[in-house]
Amino acid sequence: MSYQAPLRDMRFVLHELFDVSAHCELLGNGLDRELIDGVLEEGARYTGEVVAPLNRNSDEQGATLLNGEVTTPDGFRDAYKQYCDNGWASMTGPTEFGGQGFPQMVSASFHEMLMAASLSFRVYSGLTEGAVLALYKHGAPELQRDYLAKMISGVWTGTMCLTEPQAGTDVALLRTRAEPQADGSYHVSGSKIFISGGEQDLSENIVHLVLARLPDSPAGVKGISLFLVPKFIANADGTPGARNSLSCGAIEHKMGIKGASTCVMNFDGATGWLIGQANQGLACMFTMMNDARFQVGLQGLGIAERSCQGALAYARERLQSRALTGAAEPSKAADPIIVHPDVRRMLLTQKTLTEGCRMVSALCARELDLEHGHPEADARKAASKRAALLIPIVKSFFTDVGQEVSSLGVQVYGGHGYIREWGMEQLMRDSRITQIYEGTNGIQALDLIRRKLLGDGGTELNALIGELAAACETAGARTELAGLAETVRQRLLEWRSLTSEVIAACQRDPQEIGATSVDFLQYCSYVLLAGLWVQAAGVAQAKLAVGEGDADFYRAKLASAEFYIKRILPRASMHREALLGGADCLMGLDAEHFAF
Amino acid sequence: MSYQAPLRDMRFVLHELFDVSAHCELLGNGLDRELIDGVLEEGARYTGEVVAPLNRNSDEQGATLLNGEVTTPDGFRDAYKQYCDNGWASMTGPTEFGGQGFPQMVSASFHEMLMAASLSFRVYSGLTEGAVLALYKHGAPELQRDYLAKMISGVWTGTMCLTEPQAGTDVALLRTRAEPQADGSYHVSGSKIFISGGEQDLSENIVHLVLARLPDSPAGVKGISLFLVPKFIANADGTPGARNSLSCGAIEHKMGIKGASTCVMNFDGATGWLIGQANQGLACMFTMMNDARFQVGLQGLGIAERSCQGALAYARERLQSRALTGAAEPSKAADPIIVHPDVRRMLLTQKTLTEGCRMVSALCARELDLEHGHPEADARKAASKRAALLIPIVKSFFTDVGQEVSSLGVQVYGGHGYIREWGMEQLMRDSRITQIYEGTNGIQALDLIRRKLLGDGGTELNALIGELAAACETAGARTELAGLAETVRQRLLEWRSLTSEVIAACQRDPQEIGATSVDFLQYCSYVLLAGLWVQAAGVAQAKLAVGEGDADFYRAKLASAEFYIKRILPRASMHREALLGGADCLMGLDAEHFAF
Repeated sequence: MSYQAPLRDMRFVLHELFDVSAHCELLGNGLDRELIDGVLEEGARYTGEVVAPLNRNSDEQGATLLNGEVTTPDGFRDAYKQYCDNGWASMTGPTEFGGQGFPQMVSASFHEMLMAASLSFRVYSGLTEGAVLALYKHGAPELQRDYLAKMISGVWTGTMCLTEPQAGTDVALLRTRAEPQADGSYHVSGSKIFISGGEQDLSENIVHLVLARLPDSPAGVKGISLFLVPKFIANADGTPGARNSLSCGAIEHKMGIKGASTCVMNFDGATGWLIGQANQGLACMFTMMNDARFQVGLQGLGIAERSCQGALAYARERLQSRALTGAAEPSKAADPIIVHPDVRRMLLTQKTLTEGCRMVSALCARELDLEHGHPEADARKAASKRAALLIPIVKSFFTDVGQEVSSLGVQVYGGHGYIREWGMEQLMRDSRITQIYEGTNGIQALDLIRRKLLGDGGTELNALIGELAAACETAGARTELAGLAETVRQRLLEWRSLTSEVIAACQRDPQEIGATSVDFLQYCSYVLLAGLWVQAAGVAQAKLAVGEGDADFYRAKLASAEFYIKRILPRASMHREALLGGADCLMGLDAEHFAF
Repeated sequence: MSYQAPLRDMRFVLHELFDVSAHCELLGNGLDRELIDGVLEEGARYTGEVVAPLNRNSDEQGATLLNGEVTTPDGFRDAYKQYCDNGWASMTGPTEFGGQGFPQMVSASFHEMLMAASLSFRVYSGLTEGAVLALYKHGAPELQRDYLAKMISGVWTGTMCLTEPQAGTDVALLRTRAEPQADGSYHVSGSKIFISGGEQDLSENIVHLVLARLPDSPAGVKGISLFLVPKFIANADGTPGARNSLSCGAIEHKMGIKGASTCVMNFDGATGWLIGQANQGLACMFTMMNDARFQVGLQGLGIAERSCQGALAYARERLQSRALTGAAEPSKAADPIIVHPDVRRMLLTQKTLTEGCRMVSALCARELDLEHGHPEADARKAASKRAALLIPIVKSFFTDVGQEVSSLGVQVYGGHGYIREWGMEQLMRDSRITQIYEGTNGIQALDLIRRKLLGDGGTELNALIGELAAACETAGARTELAGLAETVRQRLLEWRSLTSEVIAACQRDPQEIGATSVDFLQYCSYVLLAGLWVQAAGVAQAKLAVGEGDADFYRAKLASAEFYIKRILPRASMHREALLGGADCLMGLDAEHFAF
């Protein structure tokens, strides 16, 4: 199954829906439309021609471990070399350490392509940008000097070492210890699990960011510190030096992303250095976590796009049964299955969820850029709040979409969808992990309610709803869109009042936090997408009105917006009703009485 | 991951919710409560101790093909021998050919256990009962004499050979041909794909039921006949005789059910015999199809149950984070995750969907029994209609539930859910095929609307709704249940009016058939389950009122009914709103404009 980056839709989102050129001007990074489009075209070539063809085999061959060394699937080494040589690794890195300083609003499109081309391949580099950010924000100058440039170039990669067998969601339980040494370094000891790319044969060095406890540190999350623990300790000349005392003890046998090594990493008094302040490890890692969660969201989006492409190609080719209104192509033995309404329902569900998430990804990337790069402090702070609100939605909703859309892709193929060689079922298996790692989607939903909603009493969410309502009003001023805009306007009102209800319920009974969280996140996501679909329809209608650009493309946007609002947005009703069902019916049953 | 048949819940459904003893008396099969319970206990032992332990390895080892011979995973041969020796194979077979004549209402519980224990293992025998039924109903006496007893005993198995590369859903496109021979037999030639258990090493002979075309038969579905084509032609003494000219050309590499062989079967002038009338093959195969679809529904149910058990065990053991209301088990490092509302939401979703489907399975099995075994012709006809209405719901909804519940099981395990050795992800992979084979779930939904709803203008469905409403009224007479019953009563009214709307829409525009089908089936399923949950609550409340039986069990039923109605039934709102969105927003977009 081939993959071609959806460049037309990416350009629509970046240039037409949002004005990425103005964004770049504000950030002062010197990027213009031509340069951005050129980069994305080159990214499309690299991901489509170099990376995507490796994905099927990577699933069959998998990553293998022998004597502590991981071998990646055929072709990964060469593709990774191109990834570094052609500057994809350094795209977002800070310029003072050799990075290209691309804004996330642009790099997110490339990263979406990379996820679509091969999630297994991307996993190896996927945490490096986040590790760079953590080191750049919190690392001591000497550490930055020794490690940052190599990591930014991709010659060295980064990992995030958080989970231990007894400590997954609950980081407070982690036991890995760090003993201070006379020279200011630490000796780190403990075992970490589920470490993506913890060992591999792609990069010359692997820089582990490890959460561990200092002696006599407080119990719980307040006693956790972050350490840089490299596979090879950097020499002063920037080459990898002494082998550190850490090793990969095993790699997991998984449902999917089999080409990616998921490692048990054993640290046996390994030399490391503190990043940031002692006992502030979680805060430092959260710098990295926002980026990591955004990237995981893009994994869901990328896989969804690839499944769309596979399903659409098959639905246009596969001849089976006649249209309900009579033969559409009488000269053929049967009609292509895309004539059937239920197949269209599946394809349009795939399409509108995927394109909807793409709009949200740009929205979120813009805030991430502004959080770090806006010239004014107040604006940086405001963007930080907005990004914090959007991140759990992006991570959780996009990955749920990735799973649903890839499952629909299997269904469109019928029996062939279940056969490995067609590649559709692989997308389902690969995407399933994205709902789990970097904080399960349930944890994202708790984060949304507890920190982001109750944290400010709903101020930031209501501001977002207000902006969506204003944009909806603008789009609805076009008579062709008045009906759709009105439907969405009603939902936005409902969203606002539901938000108040949820806050009140959670303040009344803390169990409501967990009882409403997932349904509330889903509700927010569906209505957010509706708001963006109305805006997209507004842009499309405006282009059609002045006869500018590709009319078929804009008409497709209008049809997609209509489908989404009529046939997908009703899911919001379900989530609203379900969460209003409350916590009592969840908490009443004794744990012993769930089964007899 | 172990499996223990949910005997308590099965007994609740069979004896307390429905009166299986009275059912058996009506059928005159001599079964009483004690005998039924004994059989189910023995079934629980066999599936839990003999079959379930084979499932994990069967996924890793898979079925293999060498020189045309399939080797099944370790242990399957012995387990299959016990399956035959202990009479599980012959459970439902007609008594005059050595079967035990068990009603489906009882055998369905055993078959659910078998699906849960190992879907791969069950696939090998899963079509034999249906093939027996087709042969018993439509076969010539000599064919019945030569094949039925062996098939009923399980010493020989049956397959269904329908799909060809160009003919999946669209049977009309099939090309396999049958040439009549002077001796009354036929030579069958063609290639069939996706043949479950087409070749294996478990049974002494494999009896293929093959759809093929006679020379000069009409084009399309009216020119298809059904043939019995055995691997070995039966000798007069009942032993397998000459090897027929058919062979397994390949087995598929699949997402799941890897222990089951999914075969390409090549028929090369193979000797076969007509079953039923020439050109009536589809009708004959439909005899088998109802059974096959019911069995696939049970696959979804069985896998759901196993996932429930795995998730519950883990949720009780895994310690992670503290309850939102403060430590529930302060002496431990953290609380078991079952204290968290969102984990409970997942577990209760699993539980109430699974137990709900179990109620529907008994409801449907009862009608299948009555269709064949009621002493009165009118009642047989009525049962046939009801079964026909329920079958697409059972096949489609149960398998969607199997997928959702097994995915929730993965989520409850977090990262461990993604690791193969824990077994949870295998359930997801195994269950995914059930939404596709024996008619995709989209095809089931079309069948429900086109044949079952429009076929009689909604008469049968409205009769079902009426019965549910009456039962709801009975349950609602208990004050404790008045609120829940009222919610369900409103839904039943809504269901009736929605049914009228759907019929009218489909009569106005045939595209509405396919545009509403899946959402309508889902709507029907959720409200049907609600109707049964109210009945179950009624039974539980009655038992509690008189202080009879295990109060904890009945209180759990009440809590489950409340959860289902408050938190799952809202899904009906979504499906209703979505289908009312209509066909136009599906059909407006040109096939060329789905992507740019």
